Amino acid sequence: MQTLVIVAHPDFDNSGTQNFLRASSAHLSQVQYHVLDQLYPDYQVDVARERQLLQAADQIIFQFPLYWYSAPASLKAWLDQVLQTAQEERLPDYQGKALGLVVSTGVAAAQFTAGRSEQFTLSEILRPYQALAHKLHLTYRAPLIISQFSHTNDLQKAQLLVQYQQYLTSFSDHFADQVRWLAQRLQDLASRNPEEPALAAVAATLTANQDHLDDLNQTIAMMKGGGSIG
Amino acid sequence: MQTLVIVAHPDFDNSGTQNFLRASSAHLSQVQYHVLDQLYPDYQVDVARERQLLQAADQIIFQFPLYWYSAPASLKAWLDQVLQTAQEERLPDYQGKALGLVVSTGVAAAQFTAGRSEQFTLSEILRPYQALAHKLHLTYRAPLIISQFSHTNDLQKAQLLVQYQQYLTSFSDHFADQVRWLAQRLQDLASRNPEEPALAAVAATLTANQDHLDDLNQTIAMMKGGGSIG
Repeated sequence: MQTLVIVAHPDFDNSGTQNFLRASSAHLSQVQYHVLDQLYPDYQVDVARERQLLQAADQIIFQFPLYWYSAPASLKAWLDQVLQTAQEERLPDYQGKALGLVVSTGVAAAQFTAGRSEQFTLSEILRPYQALAHKLHLTYRAPLIISQFSHTNDLQKAQLLVQYQQYLTSFSDHFADQVRWLAQRLQDLASRNPEEPALAAVAATLTANQDHLDDLNQTIAMMKGGGSIG
Repeated sequence: MQTLVIVAHPDFDNSGTQNFLRASSAHLSQVQYHVLDQLYPDYQVDVARERQLLQAADQIIFQFPLYWYSAPASLKAWLDQVLQTAQEERLPDYQGKALGLVVSTGVAAAQFTAGRSEQFTLSEILRPYQALAHKLHLTYRAPLIISQFSHTNDLQKAQLLVQYQQYLTSFSDHFADQVRWLAQRLQDLASRNPEEPALAAVAATLTANQDHLDDLNQTIAMMKGGGSIG
């Protein structure tokens, strides 16, 4: 499963947030990074190439700082050109692919609500991307919001690293899938660190607990099914 | 009262909608037109000049076709650059000015609702502009939506012309102000066409009716005020 991360940031190299995210995912072979402002500083997009990349990806991520309630202009220029079609031409079919958003904000997340400084929720502000996903038959994932990165401490950074890797490599926001993803990472870590037997034990426990939960869910589903037959 | 119309359209000269709107407002001396894609084809905005224009305007209109649920990239590039401030610099104060949107859509207006093809309302899709107005202390006006202009007939075009002129020169969406605006236009027309006495009569009737409505509203307000004292 391939993830294409399309980054819009006018000063990518000097962004602490973007550097952190890039470093967090550099080792993930299934993730391709694509920084629009560096590739197309004059906003002239290579449409044929971009459409090929979109076709090859199973998941597309738009990653950007929120500038005046939407992505920087480079992403809009990319969208306008890549998705523009002649009258007789149809858009490529993106059904089955996922669209994720990784959005950093300078304002605290709590301000995005009625009555606070930003007045609207991020769900509302990001609605145009949800509408776009709907139009292109992409599955819209819950956005990953990174607020005030420069104020985060080391523990919060470590949590963000895990969240971000999970967001890029898992295509599901379901809790069960997230648990399995974590258990898999722990098992990998355990096999590389045999001197830390606790890692394998935690991974095994996570997996066993989730298997047990899945069994219970299946039993409940069967009971409900039986009830509707009887 | 000065209105600055900031147009974002990558092919302004060949747009039927934009040509119609431009012609509809060409004679209005208080309206200044500003086509971003022609002024800044390379997206490099003259920030100092744009801020001067904003300061001089009493009303700012963003006028654009809806491309993938927001304005074309030229408006976003303009916003990113004109509103960007250094850490120590504060944004100019835009309090007391109005922000209007004139948005054309290729899709019928009725499709912008839950359950129909576009899934979301235009109020939702345009939320980032409302959030921007809120942030800059601009008064957000109800957007003027022009759907499927190429399918409109002559009567609809005439109505749009009046609506558009009103939107640019009146700063209020209140019904009473709109009636006075229309009556004023009719009186102007009557004084230039003395051979059409009906024009003056209609203008006088409109004004008299609105004066009567205003009197009634005042009486009701006084009665309510009296009630709360007694």
